[in-house]
Amino acid sequence: MHRFLDLADFSRDEIGALIELARRLEQHPEPRALAGRILGLVFFNPSLRTLASFQAGMARLGGTSFVITPGQGTWQLETRLGAVMNGAAAEHVREGLPVLASYCDALGIRAFAEGKDLARDLAEMQFSAMAGVIDKPLINLESAMNHPCQSLADWKTLDDLAVPQHAKFVLSWAQHPRALPLAVPAATVHMAAMRGMEVVVLRPEGYGLPPAVMDKARAAAAASGGSVRETASRAEALAGAQVLYAKEWGSTAHYGDAEGDAGLRAGLGDWCVTPEWFDLTDAECKFMHCLPVRRNVAVADAVLDSARSVVQREAHNRMTAQMAVLYRMLSRGV
Amino acid sequence: MHRFLDLADFSRDEIGALIELARRLEQHPEPRALAGRILGLVFFNPSLRTLASFQAGMARLGGTSFVITPGQGTWQLETRLGAVMNGAAAEHVREGLPVLASYCDALGIRAFAEGKDLARDLAEMQFSAMAGVIDKPLINLESAMNHPCQSLADWKTLDDLAVPQHAKFVLSWAQHPRALPLAVPAATVHMAAMRGMEVVVLRPEGYGLPPAVMDKARAAAAASGGSVRETASRAEALAGAQVLYAKEWGSTAHYGDAEGDAGLRAGLGDWCVTPEWFDLTDAECKFMHCLPVRRNVAVADAVLDSARSVVQREAHNRMTAQMAVLYRMLSRGV
Amino acid sequence: MHRFLDLADFSRDEIGALIELARRLEQHPEPRALAGRILGLVFFNPSLRTLASFQAGMARLGGTSFVITPGQGTWQLETRLGAVMNGAAAEHVREGLPVLASYCDALGIRAFAEGKDLARDLAEMQFSAMAGVIDKPLINLESAMNHPCQSLADWKTLDDLAVPQHAKFVLSWAQHPRALPLAVPAATVHMAAMRGMEVVVLRPEGYGLPPAVMDKARAAAAASGGSVRETASRAEALAGAQVLYAKEWGSTAHYGDAEGDAGLRAGLGDWCVTPEWFDLTDAECKFMHCLPVRRNVAVADAVLDSARSVVQREAHNRMTAQMAVLYRMLSRGV
Repeated sequence: MHRFLDLADFSRDEIGALIELARRLEQHPEPRALAGRILGLVFFNPSLRTLASFQAGMARLGGTSFVITPGQGTWQLETRLGAVMNGAAAEHVREGLPVLASYCDALGIRAFAEGKDLARDLAEMQFSAMAGVIDKPLINLESAMNHPCQSLADWKTLDDLAVPQHAKFVLSWAQHPRALPLAVPAATVHMAAMRGMEVVVLRPEGYGLPPAVMDKARAAAAASGGSVRETASRAEALAGAQVLYAKEWGSTAHYGDAEGDAGLRAGLGDWCVTPEWFDLTDAECKFMHCLPVRRNVAVADAVLDSARSVVQREAHNRMTAQMAVLYRMLSRGV
Repeated sequence: MHRFLDLADFSRDEIGALIELARRLEQHPEPRALAGRILGLVFFNPSLRTLASFQAGMARLGGTSFVITPGQGTWQLETRLGAVMNGAAAEHVREGLPVLASYCDALGIRAFAEGKDLARDLAEMQFSAMAGVIDKPLINLESAMNHPCQSLADWKTLDDLAVPQHAKFVLSWAQHPRALPLAVPAATVHMAAMRGMEVVVLRPEGYGLPPAVMDKARAAAAASGGSVRETASRAEALAGAQVLYAKEWGSTAHYGDAEGDAGLRAGLGDWCVTPEWFDLTDAECKFMHCLPVRRNVAVADAVLDSARSVVQREAHNRMTAQMAVLYRMLSRGV
Repeated sequence: MHRFLDLADFSRDEIGALIELARRLEQHPEPRALAGRILGLVFFNPSLRTLASFQAGMARLGGTSFVITPGQGTWQLETRLGAVMNGAAAEHVREGLPVLASYCDALGIRAFAEGKDLARDLAEMQFSAMAGVIDKPLINLESAMNHPCQSLADWKTLDDLAVPQHAKFVLSWAQHPRALPLAVPAATVHMAAMRGMEVVVLRPEGYGLPPAVMDKARAAAAASGGSVRETASRAEALAGAQVLYAKEWGSTAHYGDAEGDAGLRAGLGDWCVTPEWFDLTDAECKFMHCLPVRRNVAVADAVLDSARSVVQREAHNRMTAQMAVLYRMLSRGV
């Protein structure tokens, strides 16, 4: 495997094989598999799970990693082509990233959406510009519209819990003090569709996912026997749901407009997931969230601390799933 | 060993065995003892010695570590139970810490005193809340009122230097531009008492250690044949002292009140340890300090640069003592 | 090798042997050569290449490294002797550095010029004060007036490209938004002179390198059959040049005077290296730069993206050259 940038680049069988490999490495550790291999991790945005799980995963396979955080101990990196660099950024990604790539065997990059121009973010302009200058194996640690490591971990979590392939999966918008990127909702709706689930995106008016995101998910659903639809009706969405996946994101109707978004979300205080949300769902309905989560803003304590919450397993599967990706990319025997 | 949170959780024999193990690992390195083992280090507060000595110690035993610094490359973590998280913290320790623990084999956490409510800090409310959500082996890297790694290193230093068990040990307050936490003085008075020493806490009025701290130290002294007393008289304290351990801390009479503390400490400029302090002590009196130290504010150059200063040995013993703790916690053979 | 602080401390044969060793380790990796060895890296100033290349290089040789960044997760360190430390710095290098050295097998330190007093920076007052308290092997990761790791990498790059020993080597000043330190130009002019090249320093009036720097380079040239001269004439400098090495630095006529420097550089907008600069050079003239570089301020895109640019090879050679240094310092068999 040379690149792990988008779950859509892989077939369902390939995803299944990755999850199988993740399980094998859980049960039969291979602490020397990546001995001498080096992973570079570049974080343009903050991280906790990704930072820790990749370092720990590499170490569990015998490899090493180093971390670069532009702007923090390292200068800021410019991403615009042709820029006259007389501002804050002291180095261009066209120099910085190939250099870092030349020191390691694989590179992971996190670069959130710019959050100004939806078309630009949907086109992954920034991440693509960076990917284009790197010839080493590359992992997307979260880009403008994707988070394949999270999605692979979530897929494994659904499998671990034996959630049926065609179960009803609700991705629900949740409250947050400000507009967050679309990467996780976009990746999640696609992942669940690709897995073959009955996917319902539940969100208030003004927070519909972009047509390009929904179309990509629908294409995946068509191939897997799943379905994808959107609604603003909580009752309709939650009825019989077997998975409720909550996520915060910014208004697409006011993309890049913090004030417009704030005006909309001010009236949405009841989009904090509480135990009552599960009155309509399947009795066994699981609660998922990629974390970090703001307790009692996006999700109530009583949900996060309940038996239906599987957020810890999702987070732990970040490491197990990523170990499979790293193994495929870097182990010499495969 | 599952937890290393407080020296008081161990018997004198257990401490002795740890110091013995530290010596054995110094003389007979075991560079593969912790191969494949992973230590997570979480710093809510800055660190130099702890950060470097734990990483180096793990590496010397063949293990790996990763570092998480909330608020710096990682979002801030909320610690209050039931909080409505609409402020700066993006994640709660109830999610973040179990996740990090799930990636590693042992976790170390540094979380200084909140410094507002003495009773709350004495009860270790914050550290306990964090320890309570972690089921992996856990190390206290300095909490509100404790610093067991420093105390174990100091105990080993006293043993290395063959300081007699019942020698006179003076813990003296020292000047600093602002009120520092009570963790090191509280841990130090207990450590010296537990070792059986004649402990004198020398401090100006308004800087007495909390009764709970003194009572705990006195109980330890009672079991070890030592003693613990307090005084504001430098002459009385230093007479015949074999160890002078200087430390800066905030006024307990003005706990959480920076202005009140500043008013008191403004008149205490002569609480900078100078060579003259040793006129009354035993001729061989050692000078100790946990570092970092502000030269010529808390301690004069002439003391730190003299042969009686053992601060470098103390700091080096941070690594050797911690290696024994890590070995006990994580080596599969023991 | 105990210290790697200045290329001038080594003979040409010793440099040649280091480059030979670097090549051998490229062709025949020794992934266990430094097993169990620990490198401490202390960055008083930001870094990308140095941070990543040293960590990756240590890992490729089987060793481990830890990183300390004073002021960022670690308190600031005081360097002045005799200081009354009542300001921002919580610890003195006289405590902090020996402690860090005691945890590792070799220490690397980056500490840029203070940039106020040229004589003080030329004397390497700050770096020397730090080197003086460390008894472990020590590497200069860039000091006020030196950057031996960069120079060794550049020398290897010239050898890799078979640039003739006596070729014409132009070190040219380049534009930048503000005054940068003299470390790289000072190290580069000396390196090229020591290699035996015909060195021309091309710079506008007010940006001449300090006499002490030029004299040191001339002494090296005298021993190697090279030469060193300065000019403000681009035509004279570039005629027949086989290497053009661009670098930004501050006015020596206005050292420590940001306003004076800004006044001078405001009129120097045409000191951005463009393809036209190569009209006069040898057709095969290589373009070098140590990076980071501000595109279209110091160097035009069309130069950096051309085949004559070897900046990526220089940066990659940071790792290969440093691995030779680490191997010489730390491998037990040598």
